[in-house]
Amino acid sequence: MAVHYELIKTCGQSGARLGRLHTPHGTMKTPVFMPVGTLATVKTMSPEELKELGSGIILSNTYHLFLRPGHDVVQEAGGLHRFMNWDRAILTDSGGFQVFSLADLRQISEEGVSFRSHLNGQPLFLSPEKSMEIQNALGADVIMAFDECPPHPAERDYVKDSSDRTYRWLKRCVDSHRRKEDQALFGIIQGGMYRDLREESAKQITSVDLPGYAIGGLSVGEPKEMMYEALEWTVPLMPKAKPRYLMGVGSPDALVEGVIRGVDMFDCVLPTRIARNGTIMTSRGRVVVRNAKYARDFSPLDPECDCYTCRNYSRAYLRHLLKADEIFGLRLTTYHNLHFLLQLMKQVQQAIQEDRLLDFRNRFFEQYYGSLTPERNF
Amino acid sequence: MAVHYELIKTCGQSGARLGRLHTPHGTMKTPVFMPVGTLATVKTMSPEELKELGSGIILSNTYHLFLRPGHDVVQEAGGLHRFMNWDRAILTDSGGFQVFSLADLRQISEEGVSFRSHLNGQPLFLSPEKSMEIQNALGADVIMAFDECPPHPAERDYVKDSSDRTYRWLKRCVDSHRRKEDQALFGIIQGGMYRDLREESAKQITSVDLPGYAIGGLSVGEPKEMMYEALEWTVPLMPKAKPRYLMGVGSPDALVEGVIRGVDMFDCVLPTRIARNGTIMTSRGRVVVRNAKYARDFSPLDPECDCYTCRNYSRAYLRHLLKADEIFGLRLTTYHNLHFLLQLMKQVQQAIQEDRLLDFRNRFFEQYYGSLTPERNF
Ligand SMILES: [Zn+2]
Ligand SMILES: [Zn+2]
Repeated sequence: MAVHYELIKTCGQSGARLGRLHTPHGTMKTPVFMPVGTLATVKTMSPEELKELGSGIILSNTYHLFLRPGHDVVQEAGGLHRFMNWDRAILTDSGGFQVFSLADLRQISEEGVSFRSHLNGQPLFLSPEKSMEIQNALGADVIMAFDECPPHPAERDYVKDSSDRTYRWLKRCVDSHRRKEDQALFGIIQGGMYRDLREESAKQITSVDLPGYAIGGLSVGEPKEMMYEALEWTVPLMPKAKPRYLMGVGSPDALVEGVIRGVDMFDCVLPTRIARNGTIMTSRGRVVVRNAKYARDFSPLDPECDCYTCRNYSRAYLRHLLKADEIFGLRLTTYHNLHFLLQLMKQVQQAIQEDRLLDFRNRFFEQYYGSLTPERNF
Repeated sequence: MAVHYELIKTCGQSGARLGRLHTPHGTMKTPVFMPVGTLATVKTMSPEELKELGSGIILSNTYHLFLRPGHDVVQEAGGLHRFMNWDRAILTDSGGFQVFSLADLRQISEEGVSFRSHLNGQPLFLSPEKSMEIQNALGADVIMAFDECPPHPAERDYVKDSSDRTYRWLKRCVDSHRRKEDQALFGIIQGGMYRDLREESAKQITSVDLPGYAIGGLSVGEPKEMMYEALEWTVPLMPKAKPRYLMGVGSPDALVEGVIRGVDMFDCVLPTRIARNGTIMTSRGRVVVRNAKYARDFSPLDPECDCYTCRNYSRAYLRHLLKADEIFGLRLTTYHNLHFLLQLMKQVQQAIQEDRLLDFRNRFFEQYYGSLTPERNF
């Protein structure tokens, strides 16, 4: 198999998993957070900077790369790794999530989804076969099944139909996937917020023997407690020998709570997106560095952080750069936020190793959110 | 003196000068090109990248830093070097050029210039004393006298009055400059395109004993030949023992022609600005990498370049990034263009060393412009 998961140990306090993910482009410890590089670049960052930050795997978006530059261009370049000069692991999503987010612009049939490009309105079509063709051309280490992600809230009947279709589509993905030797296809469990549908989908999807499985359809606007509950229904039905990927989750609290519930992989645009807006994640909670009160604050973003940004630049300088729309400011805040989340995952790994992840969570939540049950996300 | 120029040798073929500029923040070879970091950042670049490129001195703009974050903030941060984490040399302009460019928003008197901020319309005032106060607060290694830069074309009487005022203002700058021990004040020769006024201004300005002198009022829209002629009138009147700085010049041809006419220092936004528009300077002339014909061109920007960008990325990838407004694309093209100009200056230094700068110019112009008398700038 292209990708192989190795379970190192289970946290005696929480049940969380410490493991290793082996891929054709390197091995990384899990739980792992994957920075998002939608268009074959993690916004503002160089590959060398991502390596400096310790990132072993990033995510790219099939829908966006299909639109531009086109998967054929990436394939001609020698694949996504070579195109973007990234020799560590890559995961591509299936394009499903983006296409289903185009509410008014798409039409679903058993065959696939007709939609219009959000860039120029051009009519396009994605199906399990087409998604596999594109992802095979891109050549990521992990590729995702083409699924349907229902909105929240959604009627039970709609979610049931959609989950069943996701299962049928998974089998078509398996049949049309042409690079099983070096690309690992993960199936995606759906089922919305309905316990029986989640359980049914988990059984359906994991009945197909695959190198890994994802949990989709969460973090789509539902309350956090609902997401955690859905994880508690779903994860126990997933095989222990395979990696478990919770899609689209990246707030500090949800990362920790997800790990506690048995998740190994996460991705989210959150740390990079909020960085570009000047919202900084620090050991003492968030700092909105554009605020006027930082105009003459010559201390670092986070006094406990030893990243490049915090070692060399003040809040006052960063505020100045962001206010003046200077790109270097976006680089520096992005670098710090990714450092923060990747360091958080290292601390989580260490806490699992030492059977104290619940203690870690409590201390971290108190420090970051000032509460054991945070209401905000970041 | 804070800054000291050392003449190493004169090119036997052209008369161009090879030298060294010693500053409180390091020594660099001249002729030197100074990248522009208007707002305390060379757009898209980190200080480490500028060092990797071999840049020993950058320019920052007094007008822009006065408006934001304010020179008092920079001073409180410990000065510009510390604020922006740049421990090599910095030159700040006087603010004059920017203020005089605000055509409708300013009013000139003997005392100084009243103007309105281009950001918010706030009424502000700059004078020789105020410019020195700001530049003393910023703390650059080289600071510029507050001058008046007439537009092109301009009436003789206007230019005469303005040149005389620039001389009177220079004496006020000298009187109000408070950090002579670690900041070198350069005077600026004006005189427009009138030979006698240029000569008169050169005599006036160089009659004041200063660590260096600049030639202002060129590269303001006049034909190239006119600029070269003005240099030929002016430079011979400047002292050999002091550095000569031609302000606002950075096209490859004008750099080489300026050096041939005895200039030691240059600055311009050109390489970084055109990079962000996707215009690339290469050993074979310019490449507009956004063009559709590069969509599947997997070769580097410049096959003869060994910079980070050219070693690792294709034209196809760069075109993709620029079309998608991805910041990493702006970083990569900026890096390459700065590398190109800084390497050009190294080649120019080498050619002076070997008494063959005219030969170098001819070969370079043929390769880059396909002509010994280039019409375009870049
Ligand atoms: Zn930091
Ligand atoms: Zn290059």
